[in-house]
Amino acid sequence: MLSLNTATVGDQWTLEQCIEGCVKHGIGAIAPWRDKLQACGVEKAVKLIRDSGLRVSSLCRGGFFTSDGSGNLDDNFRAVDEAAALGAESLILVVGGLQADSKDIARAREVIEEYLIKLLEYARSSGVKLAIEPLHPMYAADRACVNTLSQAIDLCDRAGDGIGVIVDVYHVWWDPELEAAITRAGEKNLLLGYHICDWLVHTEDLLQDRGMMGDGVIDLKHIRSLVESAGYDGPIEAEIFSKKDWWNRDPDEVLKVCIERFQTVV
Amino acid sequence: MLSLNTATVGDQWTLEQCIEGCVKHGIGAIAPWRDKLQACGVEKAVKLIRDSGLRVSSLCRGGFFTSDGSGNLDDNFRAVDEAAALGAESLILVVGGLQADSKDIARAREVIEEYLIKLLEYARSSGVKLAIEPLHPMYAADRACVNTLSQAIDLCDRAGDGIGVIVDVYHVWWDPELEAAITRAGEKNLLLGYHICDWLVHTEDLLQDRGMMGDGVIDLKHIRSLVESAGYDGPIEAEIFSKKDWWNRDPDEVLKVCIERFQTVV
Repeated sequence: MLSLNTATVGDQWTLEQCIEGCVKHGIGAIAPWRDKLQACGVEKAVKLIRDSGLRVSSLCRGGFFTSDGSGNLDDNFRAVDEAAALGAESLILVVGGLQADSKDIARAREVIEEYLIKLLEYARSSGVKLAIEPLHPMYAADRACVNTLSQAIDLCDRAGDGIGVIVDVYHVWWDPELEAAITRAGEKNLLLGYHICDWLVHTEDLLQDRGMMGDGVIDLKHIRSLVESAGYDGPIEAEIFSKKDWWNRDPDEVLKVCIERFQTVV
Repeated sequence: MLSLNTATVGDQWTLEQCIEGCVKHGIGAIAPWRDKLQACGVEKAVKLIRDSGLRVSSLCRGGFFTSDGSGNLDDNFRAVDEAAALGAESLILVVGGLQADSKDIARAREVIEEYLIKLLEYARSSGVKLAIEPLHPMYAADRACVNTLSQAIDLCDRAGDGIGVIVDVYHVWWDPELEAAITRAGEKNLLLGYHICDWLVHTEDLLQDRGMMGDGVIDLKHIRSLVESAGYDGPIEAEIFSKKDWWNRDPDEVLKVCIERFQTVV
């Protein structure tokens, strides 16, 4: 089942419009970003999504534990509450990069783990699953210094129940250990989500130049077969940051192309 | 000992000028790129470098085995010959990305290994050491799909004598397995070079926006201590691709800053 991550239409649609768009185009699940959720209001969003019949594949996102001196915990607790209200299948965590004025990536990883454990205690009490999204190494400095699927699995191993991983093709497609790591995540029952887009050759921007599925070089069918062989059978989220292209197109067209590509190249 | 990789001054200086610049500023080693070498002429370059007393820390570069259907071998053989003529301590290999019209990265890695073995036979007969440079995962599609130091070491293990690895901080600083991999490379006597620059937060271009040592977030002293603890005691090459900044400055200033930073932050 395809899920629409609301970042795929950029700022063009509100959450209300994204929900309507999914229903209109027959997309069965949605993954709201918190900025759109808050603009809509959580209570209203819960009602709209419940009435729409959409699954909530994830809530994007918590984390950034290294962005302040306190693990960003107050905001992360709110994110857990929002995920609980929405019945989201997980709360995505982009864990954060280096600490301010520090080059010590090993220490940043320790700090992240400490705060992650605190958040996990809170999430368990709310019944919300946390999902660590390992990010591409090009984001290690400023967004997430969990950079491989293996590293995320190790973290889950140490943290215990209630936490798993997201496999986003954009972040992991290059990894020589990918197949082994996906298999291991499946064996440990850690696969909480699968995200798709594509890697464009001659990527022009580190953050906002992702491709539509099929327009890049990622072997999407192969990676999907790996996650499905490892036992993942949940929604498949399309999440495309594309400042120069897809964010400038009519969102109805974007959804149509997502659906078509999902049927043909994913 | 600091070495000047000639790419650090962009196109501003010829190889002749780079050699003069190193001598003038007291830099003891140089790493020519092949375009500058060929513009100068190999025979002339050999004489100039010999007369200058400079060490040749490496020749940049061979590889791109996947760029045509024949492993790019003719050009790679010429690169080995040039490295032999210069007495270069190694020939750097950027192995190449995906094959044309293929998304099969596992297959690309196999093809690369096949051609690498052929080149290694030739290099052994010339006494030239090949040095695999694992490239940052953001270059996996189009430049090199050897993307971690561990992966490069495994490749060397299979290939046998006459080949080793380059540790370039820009490509490997993020790797959670970096310390273990450097130790392993040292134990196997595979460390053929150490390259420095810096990772700028808010990198604006995937290829040509590297930072001067000290201007970014890489813990240079730490990584140097790892490679030196692992037994590396050769030249340390400064290689900075910087279209928006250092390539526009007076090359004499660039060399002065490299030397100063080498003494203070590396």
